[in-house]
Amino acid sequence: KDISSYLSSLREDKDLFDIELDVLSAHALTLERAGVIDASTLREIIEALNSARTDKKLRKKNEMSLFVDSPEFYDIHPAIESYLIKKIGMDKGGYINLGKSRNDHIVADIRIFMREKFLSFYFLSLSLLKTLLKKAKENFKTPFIAFTHSQPAQITTFGYFFLSHAYPIIRAIESGPLFFDQLNLSPMGACAVAGTGVPLEREWTARLLGFNGIIKNAIDAVSSRDFFLFSSFPMLEVMLSLSRLASDIIYLSSMGYGLIELPDSLTDTSSAMPQKKNASPMELLRARTDEAISIFACMGNIIAGRISGYNQDFQELKVLWWKFSELVLSSIPVAEKYISSMSINLEKVKREIYQYFVQAIDLAEVLSLKYKIPFRLSHRITGVLVMNLIKEGKDFADIKKEDIESAVKEVSGRKIDFEDMDIFDIEKNLKIKERFYSEKIFVSELKELLKRVRKLEREILKRKRHIESAQYNLKNMQKAGK
Amino acid sequence: KDISSYLSSLREDKDLFDIELDVLSAHALTLERAGVIDASTLREIIEALNSARTDKKLRKKNEMSLFVDSPEFYDIHPAIESYLIKKIGMDKGGYINLGKSRNDHIVADIRIFMREKFLSFYFLSLSLLKTLLKKAKENFKTPFIAFTHSQPAQITTFGYFFLSHAYPIIRAIESGPLFFDQLNLSPMGACAVAGTGVPLEREWTARLLGFNGIIKNAIDAVSSRDFFLFSSFPMLEVMLSLSRLASDIIYLSSMGYGLIELPDSLTDTSSAMPQKKNASPMELLRARTDEAISIFACMGNIIAGRISGYNQDFQELKVLWWKFSELVLSSIPVAEKYISSMSINLEKVKREIYQYFVQAIDLAEVLSLKYKIPFRLSHRITGVLVMNLIKEGKDFADIKKEDIESAVKEVSGRKIDFEDMDIFDIEKNLKIKERFYSEKIFVSELKELLKRVRKLEREILKRKRHIESAQYNLKNMQKAGK
Amino acid sequence: KDISSYLSSLREDKDLFDIELDVLSAHALTLERAGVIDASTLREIIEALNSARTDKKLRKKNEMSLFVDSPEFYDIHPAIESYLIKKIGMDKGGYINLGKSRNDHIVADIRIFMREKFLSFYFLSLSLLKTLLKKAKENFKTPFIAFTHSQPAQITTFGYFFLSHAYPIIRAIESGPLFFDQLNLSPMGACAVAGTGVPLEREWTARLLGFNGIIKNAIDAVSSRDFFLFSSFPMLEVMLSLSRLASDIIYLSSMGYGLIELPDSLTDTSSAMPQKKNASPMELLRARTDEAISIFACMGNIIAGRISGYNQDFQELKVLWWKFSELVLSSIPVAEKYISSMSINLEKVKREIYQYFVQAIDLAEVLSLKYKIPFRLSHRITGVLVMNLIKEGKDFADIKKEDIESAVKEVSGRKIDFEDMDIFDIEKNLKIKERFYSEKIFVSELKELLKRVRKLEREILKRKRHIESAQYNLKNMQKAGK
Amino acid sequence: KDISSYLSSLREDKDLFDIELDVLSAHALTLERAGVIDASTLREIIEALNSARTDKKLRKKNEMSLFVDSPEFYDIHPAIESYLIKKIGMDKGGYINLGKSRNDHIVADIRIFMREKFLSFYFLSLSLLKTLLKKAKENFKTPFIAFTHSQPAQITTFGYFFLSHAYPIIRAIESGPLFFDQLNLSPMGACAVAGTGVPLEREWTARLLGFNGIIKNAIDAVSSRDFFLFSSFPMLEVMLSLSRLASDIIYLSSMGYGLIELPDSLTDTSSAMPQKKNASPMELLRARTDEAISIFACMGNIIAGRISGYNQDFQELKVLWWKFSELVLSSIPVAEKYISSMSINLEKVKREIYQYFVQAIDLAEVLSLKYKIPFRLSHRITGVLVMNLIKEGKDFADIKKEDIESAVKEVSGRKIDFEDMDIFDIEKNLKIKERFYSEKIFVSELKELLKRVRKLEREILKRKRHIESAQYNLKNMQKAGK
Repeated sequence: KDISSYLSSLREDKDLFDIELDVLSAHALTLERAGVIDASTLREIIEALNSARTDKKLRKKNEMSLFVDSPEFYDIHPAIESYLIKKIGMDKGGYINLGKSRNDHIVADIRIFMREKFLSFYFLSLSLLKTLLKKAKENFKTPFIAFTHSQPAQITTFGYFFLSHAYPIIRAIESGPLFFDQLNLSPMGACAVAGTGVPLEREWTARLLGFNGIIKNAIDAVSSRDFFLFSSFPMLEVMLSLSRLASDIIYLSSMGYGLIELPDSLTDTSSAMPQKKNASPMELLRARTDEAISIFACMGNIIAGRISGYNQDFQELKVLWWKFSELVLSSIPVAEKYISSMSINLEKVKREIYQYFVQAIDLAEVLSLKYKIPFRLSHRITGVLVMNLIKEGKDFADIKKEDIESAVKEVSGRKIDFEDMDIFDIEKNLKIKERFYSEKIFVSELKELLKRVRKLEREILKRKRHIESAQYNLKNMQKAGK
Repeated sequence: KDISSYLSSLREDKDLFDIELDVLSAHALTLERAGVIDASTLREIIEALNSARTDKKLRKKNEMSLFVDSPEFYDIHPAIESYLIKKIGMDKGGYINLGKSRNDHIVADIRIFMREKFLSFYFLSLSLLKTLLKKAKENFKTPFIAFTHSQPAQITTFGYFFLSHAYPIIRAIESGPLFFDQLNLSPMGACAVAGTGVPLEREWTARLLGFNGIIKNAIDAVSSRDFFLFSSFPMLEVMLSLSRLASDIIYLSSMGYGLIELPDSLTDTSSAMPQKKNASPMELLRARTDEAISIFACMGNIIAGRISGYNQDFQELKVLWWKFSELVLSSIPVAEKYISSMSINLEKVKREIYQYFVQAIDLAEVLSLKYKIPFRLSHRITGVLVMNLIKEGKDFADIKKEDIESAVKEVSGRKIDFEDMDIFDIEKNLKIKERFYSEKIFVSELKELLKRVRKLEREILKRKRHIESAQYNLKNMQKAGK
Repeated sequence: KDISSYLSSLREDKDLFDIELDVLSAHALTLERAGVIDASTLREIIEALNSARTDKKLRKKNEMSLFVDSPEFYDIHPAIESYLIKKIGMDKGGYINLGKSRNDHIVADIRIFMREKFLSFYFLSLSLLKTLLKKAKENFKTPFIAFTHSQPAQITTFGYFFLSHAYPIIRAIESGPLFFDQLNLSPMGACAVAGTGVPLEREWTARLLGFNGIIKNAIDAVSSRDFFLFSSFPMLEVMLSLSRLASDIIYLSSMGYGLIELPDSLTDTSSAMPQKKNASPMELLRARTDEAISIFACMGNIIAGRISGYNQDFQELKVLWWKFSELVLSSIPVAEKYISSMSINLEKVKREIYQYFVQAIDLAEVLSLKYKIPFRLSHRITGVLVMNLIKEGKDFADIKKEDIESAVKEVSGRKIDFEDMDIFDIEKNLKIKERFYSEKIFVSELKELLKRVRKLEREILKRKRHIESAQYNLKNMQKAGK
Repeated sequence: KDISSYLSSLREDKDLFDIELDVLSAHALTLERAGVIDASTLREIIEALNSARTDKKLRKKNEMSLFVDSPEFYDIHPAIESYLIKKIGMDKGGYINLGKSRNDHIVADIRIFMREKFLSFYFLSLSLLKTLLKKAKENFKTPFIAFTHSQPAQITTFGYFFLSHAYPIIRAIESGPLFFDQLNLSPMGACAVAGTGVPLEREWTARLLGFNGIIKNAIDAVSSRDFFLFSSFPMLEVMLSLSRLASDIIYLSSMGYGLIELPDSLTDTSSAMPQKKNASPMELLRARTDEAISIFACMGNIIAGRISGYNQDFQELKVLWWKFSELVLSSIPVAEKYISSMSINLEKVKREIYQYFVQAIDLAEVLSLKYKIPFRLSHRITGVLVMNLIKEGKDFADIKKEDIESAVKEVSGRKIDFEDMDIFDIEKNLKIKERFYSEKIFVSELKELLKRVRKLEREILKRKRHIESAQYNLKNMQKAGK
């Protein structure tokens, strides 16, 4: 009994209940088509499967793990076969496993389940992307600070910041259609591991179940588990991007910087310290990213070094992938909510740009470009200038032309007439980097991004509809069974 | 000093030495094109860079980490800038970093290095695939045993076994061109993190360096490290497949089964036990797969939760990816050698098929298909039959028609005249599963696979040539510098 | 609402319900002792907590996550505080959080939960060890084969094999008492992060709750999460040992070797192939070991790089550790069942010893020891001998004195009269290695091992009793509250 | 050749060269003691080993991997045996492997190497601890801010902060002596896997090599690899603690907070942005912690599921542990340097305490303790007070008695005369929490910590001396060989 419960995966199998019945229907239809069972047997099987679907007791048994009453019944397959035989007798129900084994069947179930989650992931990501692009558009002129090494580094815009988070997500889902097509193939007919003598039309079964085609090699169909990894990889990439966004949110909304503001609905307060607002869900998302990585790697470890053919180890992959997709799919909308409702504290942004000498690099560049000071030197000059200001308790808000000129003098001995104080003006500063921040550039970039997003959307919608039409068709054939 | 050596990554930078100089040349050419430096300055810079390339002392210093003599000199960038300034003076050499920072530069270096390794990986994988397909072709009729749960399960062919290992590798590299194109983009011009006021023509620099295009968003260019993961993912998939092949080889060549034979050149002997031949490299490959997984995950962990912009943590990604690609790229040819030289012990295969009752499932199927016994029942019958034989100390080599008939009787009460003893004959057995093992099927499948392989080859060759032509072009412009 | 459910950890908090109430009682008692609340307030609080304990609605709400009806109520702490205030009014119930925060409280809850699991783990491991030692004792003379590189290597005994699996498990749990003592310390009184002005007697609270003492530094108490790792490490070690045992069982019970036999109750049969018996639970244990490793590492990743103080990321550690301990604690008794019921197929052991030339090393040694042939040479001689036998289709069952003498001649040119054919006799062979396999040695070793096991048992029992007596005491004080 | 280089581990074996020779000497001495070789053979072997030690060619071959000229010579063991035979002939040198195999020998080598690194780790950690305690002592009265959720939370002291980092490190190394004793056991005499007939006195060899005793069970000696994990675990714990310290340093020294100041020698400047000072080594340490975790887990993965006996997979553990210990051992002194030279920016600390309302919790507590307002209410009052101040653009630097009184009124309707404005005074604030911050408490705590540190130091010194004395002894016996 301990052993049965150790082996049991009914908790995850619960999600496979309806899929299991669909696959069985499709298999029965294929057996009839092959002339292996006759039309009346088919009808009775389909009817029995239909009744299983609405049999609350069976479903509940399944969900409650109560089915584990015999060492053979540790998973969903024998449970339903046994139901069938009880319902319509051995002479009819006893044929359901002909040309089929647990090994190909479970792969079919899982692939069908995973493609659904994959589609959900895809649509959630597209929605997230649209929100990022919308926010980018709304804020494309709003000054912001870009960081390196956790320190304020350069002036950028809030819109540009959102775009920087959109790109990796687009890249992540660009591999989606390819991996979806690798996933959505049918193993049915591979039987135990090396094929079957039953004359099944595998492509036909595949079509019934909404697959793109079949996994030709039977050993590959039953034995390969790479699909757990390639179906996860785009999700992993998105999760990683979100974790960086989460850290940006935590860091930049923290009291020390306060550049970003979050609504109360997205922060929680301390049980002891009333002055605090914490972006706890973003901290959780950060931790869950580590978890997603570790599950991904663990799936790799479980696959690695397992000899060909089915191994029971693989059952654990199901459990892991369920958890993995749950982590990712629940994180995306939470992140989207943060994106859509976070706002900028413009006053603080401006104050800190001056306070932290964020225009320093622009100054060094302009000294080099316009005053013909080698960059290595102008870099040193700017460094000296900043030191001088700090000593005097000043920052870039207080800077004067003369401060610069004397720093140039001090370092290079040269005397210049500095005419580019505009770089300290934040708006004008962004104009210098117009190749990055001009409206024209921004609009064209956004347009192109939207085009890529829409193309990906069409690609995946096409696949979704293909599956839906197969499902509709199968449903009709199941009804006809009655 | 401890700090410098802690920070130093010169060991990996050594591999970047020539790339670094190319990127600097391209940057200098771009500066001149932008009118920021004049033609004579450009010429001197290019010449100095050319001389740096052949400067044994500089290279050696670089390789020996002796460059670490000042806190600033912990990586390759300042080392070369300093060389330049010493060589041609501050007034010319001091411009080299204008519009460029360590942050975009190191990304360019690494992407160039990685695309080379990626191409090598690709060609090694294609070669491996061709060897697998060749072996499959040579052995497509040779009987073999397919395993599940580490136990003999069904009759298959040795050729079919090779095909089952080819498929996941094809899938793995099918995402290659997409990821290659995501990798081969130029960050140059992104500067520190948020762009630059220097009017650089980023697309032109990209072309000079053989990139497909630019990473538009500067923060994305400097900050994103997803490329470490997507450039590794196809490699990880191949490694995982190889580790399963390795386990098959270890398991099936072990004395207990002895189905596969390995040449002496691929086994080593024990220091103490002279009778043993061990496939040690396959055991190592198995361990190195665990290592590859762990490096992959570690790269994810290092990226996860890092706030936007460059962080020094990323330096470690370089070190990890170097090791990762080394593991994978050295494993593929070793695996290929095993594949090309392993042979089958046909006698043992045949003996074990009978000894381990491998035709049992075929018997159950034929009882169901031809004698109209529900599969669940015929499955039980076969079970009883096997038990009976074991009790009598017999196996399928000794089986008689009557044994089957009496087992049918015992379980189902039915009397049949069993006419399908052919299923026990190995050759004829494979004919029953002709949908999987017929020559026609095999030939068409092989053809299709070769087509896929060749298409992938063309895809990647196109990219390789594009880079080579850019390199040729840059080389000429560098020479012109003299 | 999405946010609340994203934040919610009520599923794990369910297990903490009773512990939570105990900690609250202890805190209330401490507040009264400090004169912060009066005796009557204390009495009402204790009573309210008692009623909470039996309040099915509250418990159900908790378990059903229905409590998540307000953004503040995402975990167990505010849920109960709110219950208290509703029950006995703000004037009394409103004091419960004085000198206490979620941050120290949750650490107390978790440490109490973990110490329980730790004790269970310990007793399961001790039981496992006793079974291993029992099996070792029963089989200490039964010949067996030791493997290296997955190949038969040397003659050993079945008992010796069991001992080899007992040692790492003893080592694993030897660090138990130390880590238990590091775990069983009280954080109460640390409050939010840096202590409190409320004059709480922290040692007294600790004693009430069965802790050994307090975590002195408040930041350490609230912020450190090393206890998730050191409480897991002995479990991880045991799990790793079991996974190797599991692989031994799978490998050695597989048809190819068949050295070990398993009862039907511990194997399951194939849905398609009636001849097969698979040790599926051992394959699962193997996969779950990979999972345990990955969770362990993931806890490390979540802790790594988090700044001091509480971070919401830590909530995920709870979820992970729950899963981790479940994996380990369910695996130990399953492994124990396998150990206690597996038996040896002695006939096969003997046959394979001859068939796989397992005495080869003993021959090489005796040639060196008694016939004064340098070992490197006698090693080569044995190699030649084995090759000769294989060529003639013979194995060590057929070996003759002359075969050896002629191999010696062939390799070294020497003529010997070989008088040690006893090494090929399995019983006598073991006598040669009497320093390892004599009854005297075995008995003394077993005795010592049992002594170590019993010492560890006493150590941990002492701790268990200490906690139980504190719990008894607290229960009485809670009753007195009524 | 590819295969040889794939198998080769000479790079790591290089570090084992001298150890290898010691183990061989000890084995030869044991053979002579057993009467297996005579005194003159022993003498020649010892001499030859001595000459090998100084044979630059041999050592260089070893280091250069040039030894890999034959498939058998892929590691250090056959290389030296072959040297011996060449030097003193087969008749003497050919005996060196009698009663010994690569399998027990390599374990001996590695354990000796690891115990050295373990000792280094221990002394580095003790030094780190002393520095932490020293800094704690120097700063025990200096006010500082404790954070939760990356936000300022409570007033603490800089000394207290250092102590909070000392505790987990003490805990980490407390398991050191136990694990050291589990590590420092001799496998010699276990031979290939299941013992040997050669009458070796295993305890004597163990003593010669400075081991505490022997690993009794031969399979355990050759097969177990748990020592890679338990020898790493304390290192992993220390590394994790350091990574949190590193994040504290990065976060608190960042411009946004600026609480901590670092000397220029520990920061590096930007190649483009002259105003920036980055604590890059701390960012690297953070990444290397992820790496250490991943190597630790990877060692687990490589061990998991490997069947008993030596497997070539284990060779990779050596490579991984080398890297692991290098990461940890190089990080500790870097962290120590940061600790010893970081200082506080007291002015900023004070300003931010007011600015971020860090005394809020103290106010809530005092309202509850002295003004008899239930804590839940006083918490709300403080929240309202903070909101009011923010609205008026004020912070706790500007707070007046009346502000509090009116907030109390506003929330609870009560009228109080607030007399505890002292809590806003930072010095006096700490006095309220005197149970945590009084000089008396601090001094006694420090004393106790130093006592624990010194005890651990004595424990480990004892072990160090035991090894040194064995080494001295062996050296003499080797000299006597001449």
